[in-house]
Amino acid sequence: MSGPSCPLPLSEDGVIERGHGGGGAMTARLIGDVFRPGFATPPATPLHDGATLIAGGARLAFTTDCFVVMPLEFPGGDIGTLAIFGTVNDLAMCGATPLALSAGFIIEEGFEIARLRRIAAAMGRAAAAAGVEIVTGDTKVVERGKGDGVYITTAGIGLIPSGVTIGPDQVRPGDAVLLSGDVGRHGIAVMAAREGLGFEPPIASDLASLAPLVAALIAGGVRLHCLRDLTRGGLATALVEIAAGAGMEITLRSDAVAVSEAVRGACEILGLDPWYVANEGRLVAFVPMEDAARAEAILRSEPSGSAATVIGRVTAAGGRGRVLAETIGGMRVLDLPSGEQLPRIC
Amino acid sequence: MSGPSCPLPLSEDGVIERGHGGGGAMTARLIGDVFRPGFATPPATPLHDGATLIAGGARLAFTTDCFVVMPLEFPGGDIGTLAIFGTVNDLAMCGATPLALSAGFIIEEGFEIARLRRIAAAMGRAAAAAGVEIVTGDTKVVERGKGDGVYITTAGIGLIPSGVTIGPDQVRPGDAVLLSGDVGRHGIAVMAAREGLGFEPPIASDLASLAPLVAALIAGGVRLHCLRDLTRGGLATALVEIAAGAGMEITLRSDAVAVSEAVRGACEILGLDPWYVANEGRLVAFVPMEDAARAEAILRSEPSGSAATVIGRVTAAGGRGRVLAETIGGMRVLDLPSGEQLPRIC
Repeated sequence: MSGPSCPLPLSEDGVIERGHGGGGAMTARLIGDVFRPGFATPPATPLHDGATLIAGGARLAFTTDCFVVMPLEFPGGDIGTLAIFGTVNDLAMCGATPLALSAGFIIEEGFEIARLRRIAAAMGRAAAAAGVEIVTGDTKVVERGKGDGVYITTAGIGLIPSGVTIGPDQVRPGDAVLLSGDVGRHGIAVMAAREGLGFEPPIASDLASLAPLVAALIAGGVRLHCLRDLTRGGLATALVEIAAGAGMEITLRSDAVAVSEAVRGACEILGLDPWYVANEGRLVAFVPMEDAARAEAILRSEPSGSAATVIGRVTAAGGRGRVLAETIGGMRVLDLPSGEQLPRIC
Repeated sequence: MSGPSCPLPLSEDGVIERGHGGGGAMTARLIGDVFRPGFATPPATPLHDGATLIAGGARLAFTTDCFVVMPLEFPGGDIGTLAIFGTVNDLAMCGATPLALSAGFIIEEGFEIARLRRIAAAMGRAAAAAGVEIVTGDTKVVERGKGDGVYITTAGIGLIPSGVTIGPDQVRPGDAVLLSGDVGRHGIAVMAAREGLGFEPPIASDLASLAPLVAALIAGGVRLHCLRDLTRGGLATALVEIAAGAGMEITLRSDAVAVSEAVRGACEILGLDPWYVANEGRLVAFVPMEDAARAEAILRSEPSGSAATVIGRVTAAGGRGRVLAETIGGMRVLDLPSGEQLPRIC
């Protein structure tokens, strides 16, 4: 439920469209106009991907995600691994050490048990890799034609170390913006698997736990102002949301954002902008400029951060926030995508 | 994911049937044979409805539930209220004070926004009534024919007061078994709404937050050995699971278990046993016999516990556990239901 709320009301007699699940402006409007007033969320409370709460003196991060990816298995991952790493990554973006996960399954009647067994085993492996246990769960079955194989909703609890406060409101003018690797792999990998597009070489998802990157940055003494994993809506959406949440202007060097040849080619064929395509193993980090070189070196020492680099900086405070991208030809302003480029990508 | 695991393996080439979601023996087998080995859950760790964990010195309860009830609105409640109270109740059954909830929505394309608004508002009211906030969430949209209106998965965190340890392993021979009210209302209310059965008088769900009952028992100094809310599978399934988990024999007085005339009549028409029909606002409590009268008085002082009574006691230790029900004619042994009596009841 990240994203700024939007004052445009939804029409009372409207219906849910696919774009309402895309993580862009339509999702933000649904949250701002339906969930926020319904839940009676206090106006000052952000409805972030991860919430922070105090429990018996401990500072906890708490997050949830629904996974409806189609197909259920794709190059580089599957719905189970995605459900574990997706929630682990949301906790890591709060600076939290993942403690425990829950897993809820909504399964369509007729789904193969052998396939469910594979997915459960993948979840167990992913949880072990992330150093977290799945401690509770639930299973419901719906009739044929009322689901699509299996949907998984995970929630997670993490412990935030003392002294760590991460969020858009911590972003300061002059901060460096780091990106942990190339962008667009996950969305293209899922899309290619779904549509039977045989790209050569095949494109694998970047799906990975980002917890080791964050733990290394914290252990290395880097002052983390803001972290965000790049999921639905990609790099551009994440940065536009942070700029809006922080009320800051961010300026990027377009040529610093890596896109693999394979992803670039696929995006050209599909008419997609790779900056808006989903990732599941990439983050942006906002740190004071004097910590940027150290942060870059630490990220590069981790396997999933080997191509980390500084892609821009926070150039001004005040206003509603915006993201500018310097190109050879000039400057473009990034927008939130309206609906969704690629449905059911996570 | 409550329930004992079962040694009978699922066939490798089998498929998911509706009964796998019923909360009975088939669900237990799915958990024991697919999820437990897949997640690599240590054999000693129970996969309860609510897990207990330690975070920075605090003792937390953590739980999740998926809600796929059909119809989405029924006499006495709706899917949103059910999602909030269902998770609050699981926390309360650990003796925990609910702290925060998450809510994940899987919405079918074409769902009316006005209806979603009603459900969100009901969730806000239920959360306020239970004294808990919805702090984080997620929304996904699936194509027409890949869902059924809306599915909601909630997770919750609660704080367990020091000195409180509740679970089947705390049950002792001689313990009294209390039931907080009459049984079978929720299942029959949903079934009647779904099938258009016009029972006269209409039967409303017992849906309620059980947190006030538990808080009152703890405040009153009652030593709570085990608590369980009676959801899918009803009273009988809850007691059979506790007996198995505790390795104890439980003996009930059948005439002490209240069933309203309306529910009894509906169950006769539908061929259902009300002891196996779902509830959403009823609990059983295991307490030392010398605390039983006080516990009964405390429960009766709360609106949702006004018909609380002692229905039986723990008669023997050892063995695999079983539940006996004394009737006028003799004694019957209660079983786990195999599949599911009433699909999509929660």
